[in-house]
Amino acid sequence: MSRIPVAILGATGAVGQKFVRLLADHPWFEIAQLSASAERVGKRYGDEVRWRELTPLPDHIADIKMTAMTPVDGVKMAFSGVDAAIAREVEPAFAHAGVLVVTNASAFRMESDVPLLIPEVNANHIQVIEQQRRNRGWTGGIIANPNCCVAAFAMGLAPLDRAFGLQSAIVATLQATSGAGYPGVPSLDILGNIIPYIGGNEEEKIAAETKKILGTLSSEGIRSSTFGVSAMVHRVPVLDGHLLSASIRFLGAPPTPEAANALLGEFTGEESARGLPSSPARPIEVESRIDRPQSRLDIDRGNGMTVTVGRMRPCEVQHLRLVLLGHNLIRGAAGAAVLNGELAVQQGLLER
Amino acid sequence: MSRIPVAILGATGAVGQKFVRLLADHPWFEIAQLSASAERVGKRYGDEVRWRELTPLPDHIADIKMTAMTPVDGVKMAFSGVDAAIAREVEPAFAHAGVLVVTNASAFRMESDVPLLIPEVNANHIQVIEQQRRNRGWTGGIIANPNCCVAAFAMGLAPLDRAFGLQSAIVATLQATSGAGYPGVPSLDILGNIIPYIGGNEEEKIAAETKKILGTLSSEGIRSSTFGVSAMVHRVPVLDGHLLSASIRFLGAPPTPEAANALLGEFTGEESARGLPSSPARPIEVESRIDRPQSRLDIDRGNGMTVTVGRMRPCEVQHLRLVLLGHNLIRGAAGAAVLNGELAVQQGLLER
Amino acid sequence: MSRIPVAILGATGAVGQKFVRLLADHPWFEIAQLSASAERVGKRYGDEVRWRELTPLPDHIADIKMTAMTPVDGVKMAFSGVDAAIAREVEPAFAHAGVLVVTNASAFRMESDVPLLIPEVNANHIQVIEQQRRNRGWTGGIIANPNCCVAAFAMGLAPLDRAFGLQSAIVATLQATSGAGYPGVPSLDILGNIIPYIGGNEEEKIAAETKKILGTLSSEGIRSSTFGVSAMVHRVPVLDGHLLSASIRFLGAPPTPEAANALLGEFTGEESARGLPSSPARPIEVESRIDRPQSRLDIDRGNGMTVTVGRMRPCEVQHLRLVLLGHNLIRGAAGAAVLNGELAVQQGLLER
Amino acid sequence: MSRIPVAILGATGAVGQKFVRLLADHPWFEIAQLSASAERVGKRYGDEVRWRELTPLPDHIADIKMTAMTPVDGVKMAFSGVDAAIAREVEPAFAHAGVLVVTNASAFRMESDVPLLIPEVNANHIQVIEQQRRNRGWTGGIIANPNCCVAAFAMGLAPLDRAFGLQSAIVATLQATSGAGYPGVPSLDILGNIIPYIGGNEEEKIAAETKKILGTLSSEGIRSSTFGVSAMVHRVPVLDGHLLSASIRFLGAPPTPEAANALLGEFTGEESARGLPSSPARPIEVESRIDRPQSRLDIDRGNGMTVTVGRMRPCEVQHLRLVLLGHNLIRGAAGAAVLNGELAVQQGLLER
Repeated sequence: MSRIPVAILGATGAVGQKFVRLLADHPWFEIAQLSASAERVGKRYGDEVRWRELTPLPDHIADIKMTAMTPVDGVKMAFSGVDAAIAREVEPAFAHAGVLVVTNASAFRMESDVPLLIPEVNANHIQVIEQQRRNRGWTGGIIANPNCCVAAFAMGLAPLDRAFGLQSAIVATLQATSGAGYPGVPSLDILGNIIPYIGGNEEEKIAAETKKILGTLSSEGIRSSTFGVSAMVHRVPVLDGHLLSASIRFLGAPPTPEAANALLGEFTGEESARGLPSSPARPIEVESRIDRPQSRLDIDRGNGMTVTVGRMRPCEVQHLRLVLLGHNLIRGAAGAAVLNGELAVQQGLLER
Repeated sequence: MSRIPVAILGATGAVGQKFVRLLADHPWFEIAQLSASAERVGKRYGDEVRWRELTPLPDHIADIKMTAMTPVDGVKMAFSGVDAAIAREVEPAFAHAGVLVVTNASAFRMESDVPLLIPEVNANHIQVIEQQRRNRGWTGGIIANPNCCVAAFAMGLAPLDRAFGLQSAIVATLQATSGAGYPGVPSLDILGNIIPYIGGNEEEKIAAETKKILGTLSSEGIRSSTFGVSAMVHRVPVLDGHLLSASIRFLGAPPTPEAANALLGEFTGEESARGLPSSPARPIEVESRIDRPQSRLDIDRGNGMTVTVGRMRPCEVQHLRLVLLGHNLIRGAAGAAVLNGELAVQQGLLER
Repeated sequence: MSRIPVAILGATGAVGQKFVRLLADHPWFEIAQLSASAERVGKRYGDEVRWRELTPLPDHIADIKMTAMTPVDGVKMAFSGVDAAIAREVEPAFAHAGVLVVTNASAFRMESDVPLLIPEVNANHIQVIEQQRRNRGWTGGIIANPNCCVAAFAMGLAPLDRAFGLQSAIVATLQATSGAGYPGVPSLDILGNIIPYIGGNEEEKIAAETKKILGTLSSEGIRSSTFGVSAMVHRVPVLDGHLLSASIRFLGAPPTPEAANALLGEFTGEESARGLPSSPARPIEVESRIDRPQSRLDIDRGNGMTVTVGRMRPCEVQHLRLVLLGHNLIRGAAGAAVLNGELAVQQGLLER
Repeated sequence: MSRIPVAILGATGAVGQKFVRLLADHPWFEIAQLSASAERVGKRYGDEVRWRELTPLPDHIADIKMTAMTPVDGVKMAFSGVDAAIAREVEPAFAHAGVLVVTNASAFRMESDVPLLIPEVNANHIQVIEQQRRNRGWTGGIIANPNCCVAAFAMGLAPLDRAFGLQSAIVATLQATSGAGYPGVPSLDILGNIIPYIGGNEEEKIAAETKKILGTLSSEGIRSSTFGVSAMVHRVPVLDGHLLSASIRFLGAPPTPEAANALLGEFTGEESARGLPSSPARPIEVESRIDRPQSRLDIDRGNGMTVTVGRMRPCEVQHLRLVLLGHNLIRGAAGAAVLNGELAVQQGLLER
């Protein structure tokens, strides 16, 4: 079977490089277009990219000549790692031209007709793409993955919400510097330091996106859940991996910590999200060691696609406290988008 | 006026060294005794200590011969930096022999007749020492300062609790490695990593001690406050400074962020705690910059005795979110004890 | 073909755990004995080890009951990760009992009848084991790998020495904290800091071992080379990977940087060291990027068995300057020993 | 006595901020002009600077309106913290207009008629300013301080060179990230990593500037010394402080390590450099502890103006090995320039 030609938008950036690495040997997709900013058009990718992945850049990809951010014949799917401002301009143009844009950008995440997906949690939301196409007159479309913190947070909350109903969640995040891209956070700001702030309305995004993902599909698009979410964000001197400490309250009687752990440990995710090329064996792993998960030791589980949950314990103020950890660049960015792209193929969105 | 001769218990440890530095030139106190474990008795302090403070060890202190952990004639006050297990044995013996032990150890902090003090917040609790002496037949006594996180946390909460009444607080701590003493946290555990756990029942201490400090003096000792406190602790790759992110709920109508900030900025602390040698000009400073306080940049305010509060903002789940920062070894340990000792002198506890 | 049963001495330590990971799925070896200190004998490995490797501990190994440090019937080879002091007692006992001890300990490295091996460089030195057996009346033996810095340093120097003859080398090392084992370097000592000293006569070891490896086999054992080596060591806040900057002088006319690079890039190592299970495709890789090798980015080449050389440039004082990088726990410790064990099997040392 | 009005060129940068802090309460100098790039002219300094010093920015300086980089009436001395490219344009214009420019920029350091000063080492070189004025028709002039590594390196070598005559020095540098300014080194590049390269011809600068400082004043300007210097540079994850490990060879019989230490410990520097406001009590301190100096523990000696030397020991290849440490932003940049400015005043260079 021949592989599906795909584009990468923003191919030289940090997320773009991750896309290149994840797609270089992908069983379903084949990199056919690498697009970048105007001054790089026509140049060899290998000459322009400051490659920072630990595995070498494959020669056949290094040799690709970069294009502008415009659709190319035969490419029906694009993985987008561009900034929100650029996404706002470029992604609709691709969608209008019939390309399915699978984006990591935040630009359209909160539009009610844009699916904001964690496939294991809300694969069914992908159906809103039909409304999106009708609303906007697009033949392609836009599918988004959430913010890097939300990717782990909503995953861990989902089984608990479905089984017991959440009333509120307060979460403190300890976020790695790779979440800010490259060059990103200056070393003088973060060596031996904590910054209790992250730009781009990070705290608001965490609240809004978590509620959208745990929301429901309706005839007017995705309707966000209404439980309360409050985030307190911190940048920490860690390279990769966002660790979250949360206190949650249930609508009714809460589960015991043991019951909550059992529920999370058994979580397999939505049927349609199982067995895709990027699906981890287990979307959630529960840790019983008292000092785990830890950012450096646990982020690579499931090739960076597994969320680790630990330290489930009662909370004196709400009901339960727990720690969640996810790889911010894999489950929280490029890996999430690739899984979304795989879901879209499996759901037949490319067949028109 | 001649200075008061004092002892330091556990003089070679991390907190003990801070005591030496803070007391070396103290206007009221004079180091008369340095006590350590048995194998060091009779040896020169300068030869035994692995001095880690940035200022040089004064020669006249380096020359002191160390004693066992037993009272010495003429020494009526002892600053204790020993571990809880040793404190449990040694401190009562000193107290019984007429020495006022000002301790950083956790051993007796939660005893109802032991004052657990942040002088600016609850200087009046020192009066419980009279009950302690009666209860225990001591002529000296034990006065404790709180856990390093509580030192900043209870300071920041106190003005808000008094003015508006707190119902609950959820706090995530990002704690420096110096809080674990020396050698403490192995570098292999914490370089580029986050550990969401701290031994010694840290989370329980934070809850219990905060409530005791904000409690009231009664004829049966200190009665803890009853609001809810839930802590989620993390060790982070930072040398000094504990940063706390908190979400708080009030019993009644909450203040606006602006009103809360104004209240904290005007806080001068209890009358008796002002103007002591170690009192900072301001117990609390309020930061308006959106990305402050930061662990490395803000811990030395007020010579490490000032707590910095910032990022006051509404909370979707409770009422307000805020960030607090304190120097864990100064305001959170040795400096706190020295201030407690000064308060005890000013309150006449050494005059019998 | 059935696998060779092997023991691991010091199985719970940092190097011991690496042995477990490297041998868990080894094509030639099978872990048959895990030995540890007396208080652990009879206990389950999985219960006693504080597993720190990123890949999970296999169940069938976790279930092994630990033994004392004494030979067990049927085990003819032992990989040793114990400290030098213990090695001095234990390893001869194993060797006397017929076990071939492949050790990472420094205890016997400089004995003239103990082969100190980097197989690609001096595989032929393994023949000295016959002298060792005669000298000591052993039926087993001891084979050592070098110090973690020497593993990279001697590898990089060897092709240059053979082709052009070295007169002297001055080397500054920047060594990761994992080189000190666990708990090893306290975080308070190394966070944001450099320590220009490493205990255990590190500088002397680097000089002596490098010269022994580049020495020659004679009828009186290994005769060290006589060129000058001067090391200046530093501990740096890096987890894994020792980076070395060297200035070297040749006996005669020096090669150009280009010629030196070409020589290193073509180096394939001794015939007998090629194609062993742990042999990397290339023992040395030459980097042309001006800011490489870097500790974090380049240590995993060849599964941690490849030494990366870069920044070859003229030296105003000697002849050439260059940078070398090796993985201190793989090529510099456990991986080196496993490769030595493989060489020993291939050379028929177990067949008696 | 009224203070001398001075300008700071590049006042918002990292070195510029250090100038502001060091000059804010200077006994001889008064900040009269803060100049910055065009878009900031006329704006309040306090509004434009992203103040990163730990001490607060004084209000009276925050209120200064910034000027363009052009001389202002009455300002006869300017401290320059601009980049080399800007320095090349701006500094001659000031010098031509009668301003004495005391610069940290590298632009003119190697001109034979520009004094490159470490006052304790070569204060007499300041006399070349007369040649400079004649050569260039300037009424002001340019005085430079060396590269941040050279500031410590040449200081430590100078007494040894004068007493025994140096033949060669090989030095490995471990340089803090603050040496690259702000934002400077991205955290993703340096967290847990070593980069064996620093841009801007750092290695060449170290060689050339060290030789110029240890050179001699002649009628044709400064004549550099001719001994060999070879540098191998590394960026390390440390905030402040450049640590250097050197191996040195003497022209004749070398001193013992003890004699070398004694010489360095007694070094008081040139007569004219003593007792200036920024002169440290001792330009060099010798450490006897085997693991010192360390970057974090020893950089603040003498308010950052003292160079610490330790680990003096024989070298198998050359004669002696030693470690040197200096504060890269104080002794290596702003503090060095302020001391140069003080020397210029004391030498009467402002009186015309």
